[in-house]
Amino acid sequence: MHIGKVSGTVVATFKDKVFEGKKLLIVDRLTPEGEPTGHYWIAVDDVQAGVGDTVLVIDEGNSARQVVGMDPAPIRAVVVGIVDEIDIAA
Amino acid sequence: MHIGKVSGTVVATFKDKVFEGKKLLIVDRLTPEGEPTGHYWIAVDDVQAGVGDTVLVIDEGNSARQVVGMDPAPIRAVVVGIVDEIDIAA
Amino acid sequence: MHIGKVSGTVVATFKDKVFEGKKLLIVDRLTPEGEPTGHYWIAVDDVQAGVGDTVLVIDEGNSARQVVGMDPAPIRAVVVGIVDEIDIAA
Amino acid sequence: MHIGKVSGTVVATFKDKVFEGKKLLIVDRLTPEGEPTGHYWIAVDDVQAGVGDTVLVIDEGNSARQVVGMDPAPIRAVVVGIVDEIDIAA
Amino acid sequence: MHIGKVSGTVVATFKDKVFEGKKLLIVDRLTPEGEPTGHYWIAVDDVQAGVGDTVLVIDEGNSARQVVGMDPAPIRAVVVGIVDEIDIAA
Repeated sequence: MHIGKVSGTVVATFKDKVFEGKKLLIVDRLTPEGEPTGHYWIAVDDVQAGVGDTVLVIDEGNSARQVVGMDPAPIRAVVVGIVDEIDIAA
Repeated sequence: MHIGKVSGTVVATFKDKVFEGKKLLIVDRLTPEGEPTGHYWIAVDDVQAGVGDTVLVIDEGNSARQVVGMDPAPIRAVVVGIVDEIDIAA
Repeated sequence: MHIGKVSGTVVATFKDKVFEGKKLLIVDRLTPEGEPTGHYWIAVDDVQAGVGDTVLVIDEGNSARQVVGMDPAPIRAVVVGIVDEIDIAA
Repeated sequence: MHIGKVSGTVVATFKDKVFEGKKLLIVDRLTPEGEPTGHYWIAVDDVQAGVGDTVLVIDEGNSARQVVGMDPAPIRAVVVGIVDEIDIAA
Repeated sequence: MHIGKVSGTVVATFKDKVFEGKKLLIVDRLTPEGEPTGHYWIAVDDVQAGVGDTVLVIDEGNSARQVVGMDPAPIRAVVVGIVDEIDIAA
């Protein structure tokens, strides 16, 4: 997993039913210190995350399919947690 | 998934039947803001996308095999959605 | 696997039960010579590693699910070993 | 998949039988415009490709295992097609 | 697969039995021309490779599990071949 910040949303037209009713978030990948890395994911939301939230993203198909409870399903990145606290050793 | 823009097509000779009748798209990976990243995929089209369309690409074998309805099949990247709207928080 | 150094911890709110009671470590990826690479993982701890420990991280879903003994489970990176010795040829 | 150019061959000693009688190609990854990217694969040949050919490479284990018709088999990158034509929108 | 050079070894304490009696190699990823790329793997040895050997590394979990003959097993990178000859077209 990596730490990310939700920066926006995407609306798209899909053929696959797994996307029905799902919110697609744009999540910028951050360093542990909170700096942007230049990478991002379009991720399915599993935890009611909103724009500005710091979240944990897992980017693996089998994980994503389990989270949405559909297998098969063409998804890969999912927001699985909302970060409460980050402790970095000084 | 990532956001991409269809920039062209590829015609190739394959041995595997999964590619019969499939359109292969060159898709440039974009940032959420629409800037090129220098990365691309050769992706199977699942949504009748055309050159110039902004699309969503998923790059994972199990997802791709489900989308084309053939398993096994040697494919990995698929265009699964056509982007209608991107909202980035100011 | 890659060599990493545990630099901190993350506390987050999850829906999935696999994370209950698990410690989530921030692990900075190192070169074999011990230099930072700029990459990191948020990894599940399997070996009682603590901040400052040099560890081995495996970043693959099926490996991670085996290590925690839960399948399915939406996890991918796991700390599987604590490094005792690194020998690099001169 | 990505576009590549076959630049050479590798001969190696393996324990696994999947490599018996297989040609291993060095394939440089190209941009769609034909420029080198600095990346390469050592890929199993499935289409009688030769040095200098422009090809399509898929880099995923399950795809590779299907192409060679052996599962399990420790392979990942395979040359699955020979490029006939690349059209990039002006 | 990629070409690598064995540059050292790692000794670590694991909980998982798959690592018992296995040699863990530090393998620097090379270009086909033999230049370092700055990437490396900690890989399980399957071919009695030693420091200084030029080898082929496959970095995929299912391949690795097959090579060691244990599934499940939390491993991903394996040295599967020793390079005898590299021919690059002039």
